[in-house]
Amino acid sequence: MSIQAWFAALDLIGTLAFAISGAIAGYQKKLDLFGIVTAAYATACGGGIIRDVCIGTLPPAGLSDWRYLALVVVATGMVIGGAKLVEKLSHPVLLFDAAGLGFFAVLGAHKTLSHGHGITTAILLGVMSAVGGGAVRDLLLNRTPVILQKEIYASAALLAAAFLAIGQALGWPLGWVSGAAIVSCFVLRYLSLRFGWNLPRFTKNAE
Amino acid sequence: MSIQAWFAALDLIGTLAFAISGAIAGYQKKLDLFGIVTAAYATACGGGIIRDVCIGTLPPAGLSDWRYLALVVVATGMVIGGAKLVEKLSHPVLLFDAAGLGFFAVLGAHKTLSHGHGITTAILLGVMSAVGGGAVRDLLLNRTPVILQKEIYASAALLAAAFLAIGQALGWPLGWVSGAAIVSCFVLRYLSLRFGWNLPRFTKNAE
Amino acid sequence: MSIQAWFAALDLIGTLAFAISGAIAGYQKKLDLFGIVTAAYATACGGGIIRDVCIGTLPPAGLSDWRYLALVVVATGMVIGGAKLVEKLSHPVLLFDAAGLGFFAVLGAHKTLSHGHGITTAILLGVMSAVGGGAVRDLLLNRTPVILQKEIYASAALLAAAFLAIGQALGWPLGWVSGAAIVSCFVLRYLSLRFGWNLPRFTKNAE
Repeated sequence: MSIQAWFAALDLIGTLAFAISGAIAGYQKKLDLFGIVTAAYATACGGGIIRDVCIGTLPPAGLSDWRYLALVVVATGMVIGGAKLVEKLSHPVLLFDAAGLGFFAVLGAHKTLSHGHGITTAILLGVMSAVGGGAVRDLLLNRTPVILQKEIYASAALLAAAFLAIGQALGWPLGWVSGAAIVSCFVLRYLSLRFGWNLPRFTKNAE
Repeated sequence: MSIQAWFAALDLIGTLAFAISGAIAGYQKKLDLFGIVTAAYATACGGGIIRDVCIGTLPPAGLSDWRYLALVVVATGMVIGGAKLVEKLSHPVLLFDAAGLGFFAVLGAHKTLSHGHGITTAILLGVMSAVGGGAVRDLLLNRTPVILQKEIYASAALLAAAFLAIGQALGWPLGWVSGAAIVSCFVLRYLSLRFGWNLPRFTKNAE
Repeated sequence: MSIQAWFAALDLIGTLAFAISGAIAGYQKKLDLFGIVTAAYATACGGGIIRDVCIGTLPPAGLSDWRYLALVVVATGMVIGGAKLVEKLSHPVLLFDAAGLGFFAVLGAHKTLSHGHGITTAILLGVMSAVGGGAVRDLLLNRTPVILQKEIYASAALLAAAFLAIGQALGWPLGWVSGAAIVSCFVLRYLSLRFGWNLPRFTKNAE
């Protein structure tokens, strides 16, 4: 399997996992059918659209490639048709989501560097690719983005994006760097879920 | 009347209707003068700005054409100066809004195709043109976008955008296709308002 | 000191003031470390990123220049490390913020004109540069943007952007026009803070 095919497969798996997470959020908020599709689409494609707009690769892949839309429809169907199934799948979804997080961070940073931009841009847009969709979803659902509030999530994406951008800038082999970045992100995210790790907060008093 | 002049007229009427709807929402939220203008502007121009950024026609028309801004100021004046008038106009405003919805969906899809992009992009950006402004307004006013929650609204825009994009791709005459798309959207929207149609929801329990 | 060096210095001071204001908002909302950095970054760079995306200068300066990110980190450190210090500094921060407001409005309008766009675009993007970051911050923190609700803030930015755009279009000397625009904005903002000026509202009844 070539590195391109591997990247493409991970992209689609990550998109599906993000779309399922968005559809579940829309379903729980009691949105109608269009609302659930929109929440799923925003989660799966929002980060990549922001990235593509910022580096000028227009139209954004999330708008022009029908496969993303198809995955969003599949995810919505899975959530509506199989609420019980989805509950059983919640652990795998978290794992897919953690994998997708690292991959989107790596892909975003890599795509930014490939268009000739610098390391700072690559790291920032890698993180944006990975967490932007979830932030858009939370904005649409009218709640403070969870990435701002709990668990090591965006930090894991930052680790992966920085690893890839610095490694690629130093000329390390892309296959190894991207793999290690994704695995680091996944492990950090998994351990933070497993052991309830959080970033520090700085206020003690209750709301 | 040429098809261009007809499109341009509908564009301005739709913009005014959307601006009025935004100004009313800002007025009801007790915003100050600048807040009402901003809510009106976001509603009228937000969707088109997102569309233009995504297809790269910069600066977006909503930012560069002073007529949009003038319509926003007129709409704000109407809402502030004539709260009673606006109440009497609420039925016509809904009708203009439904017409504008279809037109913005058609214009967005058509503009996207005209810049050489594909059908998927055209449909998605047609819907975004039509409903994006209302979504931005609701985000600014800190509420879940109503398009996600009730009535057949975004679905009517989707119908119009898909109709136009597919018809134009098949080479049907643009005048007929755009007219039929706008009318379909308008009729669907009107009937859903008249009879209280909604898209299905999938949860039974109360909030 | 050349006008470029003066502009660059004001840009960095304005960025720092905006970043501090964002970090304080995130701190008060009890976000974690990443959340505070994000709130600071969104406030300091959000408006400029929207401006650059709309005029097509990609990647946006806020994403590609590491100095902005460094200032965001410094601001976060100041807020976390010195809550008491920040309280003492709240008056200077308001003053820096008012200076930054005018400068960002002037810089945004000037940059837009420099890329060959018209006066309407320059004024709108000048205001967007100045107030967009605060609006993004408030959206992320799930509250109605304060710029829509109170005090003469966006109006002061509008004054500065319009002053610069019209003056530059009329061929007035850039140094004088930009200085006068910044000072006008600052004075208007300062007086509105000092005397509690607000734009008119149009509803009497309590919420």
